[in-house]
Amino acid sequence: MLIKYEELEKTLEKILLSRDLATSDAKDLATIFATNSLDGVYSHGANRFPRLIDYIDKGEVNPHNKVSVELEFGAFIKLNGNLGIGPLNAKVAMDKACDLAAKFGIGLVMLKNTNHWMRGGTYGFQAADRGMIGICFSNTTANMPVWGGMDPKLGNNPLVIGVPRANGKHVVCDMAISQYSYGKVEQTRLTGKQLPYPGGFDSDGNLTCDPTELEKTKRFLPIGYWKGSGLSLVLDLMATVLSGGNSVSDITKLGDEIGLSQIFIAIDPSKVNSKVETESYVEKILADIKSSIPVKEGGEVYYPGELSAKTRAENLEKGIPVVDEVWTKIQSLIK
Amino acid sequence: MLIKYEELEKTLEKILLSRDLATSDAKDLATIFATNSLDGVYSHGANRFPRLIDYIDKGEVNPHNKVSVELEFGAFIKLNGNLGIGPLNAKVAMDKACDLAAKFGIGLVMLKNTNHWMRGGTYGFQAADRGMIGICFSNTTANMPVWGGMDPKLGNNPLVIGVPRANGKHVVCDMAISQYSYGKVEQTRLTGKQLPYPGGFDSDGNLTCDPTELEKTKRFLPIGYWKGSGLSLVLDLMATVLSGGNSVSDITKLGDEIGLSQIFIAIDPSKVNSKVETESYVEKILADIKSSIPVKEGGEVYYPGELSAKTRAENLEKGIPVVDEVWTKIQSLIK
Repeated sequence: MLIKYEELEKTLEKILLSRDLATSDAKDLATIFATNSLDGVYSHGANRFPRLIDYIDKGEVNPHNKVSVELEFGAFIKLNGNLGIGPLNAKVAMDKACDLAAKFGIGLVMLKNTNHWMRGGTYGFQAADRGMIGICFSNTTANMPVWGGMDPKLGNNPLVIGVPRANGKHVVCDMAISQYSYGKVEQTRLTGKQLPYPGGFDSDGNLTCDPTELEKTKRFLPIGYWKGSGLSLVLDLMATVLSGGNSVSDITKLGDEIGLSQIFIAIDPSKVNSKVETESYVEKILADIKSSIPVKEGGEVYYPGELSAKTRAENLEKGIPVVDEVWTKIQSLIK
Repeated sequence: MLIKYEELEKTLEKILLSRDLATSDAKDLATIFATNSLDGVYSHGANRFPRLIDYIDKGEVNPHNKVSVELEFGAFIKLNGNLGIGPLNAKVAMDKACDLAAKFGIGLVMLKNTNHWMRGGTYGFQAADRGMIGICFSNTTANMPVWGGMDPKLGNNPLVIGVPRANGKHVVCDMAISQYSYGKVEQTRLTGKQLPYPGGFDSDGNLTCDPTELEKTKRFLPIGYWKGSGLSLVLDLMATVLSGGNSVSDITKLGDEIGLSQIFIAIDPSKVNSKVETESYVEKILADIKSSIPVKEGGEVYYPGELSAKTRAENLEKGIPVVDEVWTKIQSLIK
């Protein structure tokens, strides 16, 4: 089913208003979810919306709670998310990081006690829209073993780095530290396919592309094997130490994935370069990688964020693909 | 051959003094190289020392040039490395980042026109020794294709994140963005072995563990396939845009790997926590991951940096393993 952006956004907004969100919050949050689907990140757009409403209805996410400032020092600010709405908290945090960067060149915001930010790339694009480099990461519930271990101890802790382009088609690398998400593995199983590359270990301890085996062993693979294992750990250490919030291990004990710790860093390149210089550095590098000899004849290589810009253009024109059941579910949430 | 740390350091120092380095520079640089070997990072310790001397003798690395400050703004400093000695430039840069962090909570130093820093972990440990979180990365010559491309366009751009522990056994994640280094692949070929996991694509376009195939195709794999490809790109973008120095593409045109761009970020956790609090967050997380059920009976999982601490203790006691030919080569450099 294809839904026009405006209709999706309006529908989500209406549902959020019925959950007593402030008018501007409902609008902002509906925009974030609808844009995620618009850009092709369906898993953290329309598909995930019902779960947020469920958490609000259960009282695990409090739609009236806002971030509060716990500490300000030099170029950093420590925030408490007060278990409010993840994407709205994250938006405020990245905005404050950009404000600090405008003043000090670089700014750091640590946010504890927040909720899932949905698509991390949102905040990379947000910083880039202000002409800033944005770096952010979040911890999560434990969903991967440490390298050499059997049981899930690490989060897939998404890491986002956004670099602004003058034309607005920003470069935004948005990656979880696991090779595949649980959602991707489930979707692969449901369509009766195999993963294109090994996603973890099977019951015999061998690498496997089989989604059913992976769901059984839960031995999901970090990117780069031992490397991603180390990277996931240091991201959790930084998020926890700096925010003073929950670690991956603490979150896991909570059951549902709530009470996360997140870090937002913004850097203002206009403090070292003119806009024209920054543009020239970025465009030269992108032109070089785009000149790659493609593996497939007539193929192309893409920079991170390029494909979502393509999808956005397509979805704006033709409408956003929404799974029938998801759309039915969303409409059932209108009170 | 086993060489005592003191002997290795003294020998390197003597060679550096004969190349007319200032007394304290020769001492500092010899310490960095000898410590890298002491910690088991032989590839960027004794093994790599002759190449530095070669670059100095060729005039590509100028041992008298120091970093100069090009710009200071708020919490950041832009440095020109003036093609001086990479590890000494990097050490100054991380020190300045820590000074900024002590003042503003976070500090950013961009360094252009520098040379290879050898083991990136050195500067993660350096920040951690000052009680700081240290993040740094460097660009390199092009040595990996972009995902979907055939020809090397990306650097393996090492990324380092260090988190301090009160007991000095810091957590330092030090990883290149390629799955394996050229050095590791060469060493695997020389010993007639296969890589433990695929390191890239063979001539037929299939993933391969065969070092000979990999050296032929040069299609080295980024960590996490498309994910590492994106990460490598954004690290190069940040290093180039912020330092105003050479990009991976620019460096590649220079032939030898010189004139690099590097970024150093330090964050001072003492501005948000007491030392006891920071220690408690870190130790709780480490205790949790160390409680993993090991894959191999009686096995253990390690945090990044843990194995080098073990190797250091062993090498301090028994001496540092140095390949015979490397030791002969080093001794031939004494003038």
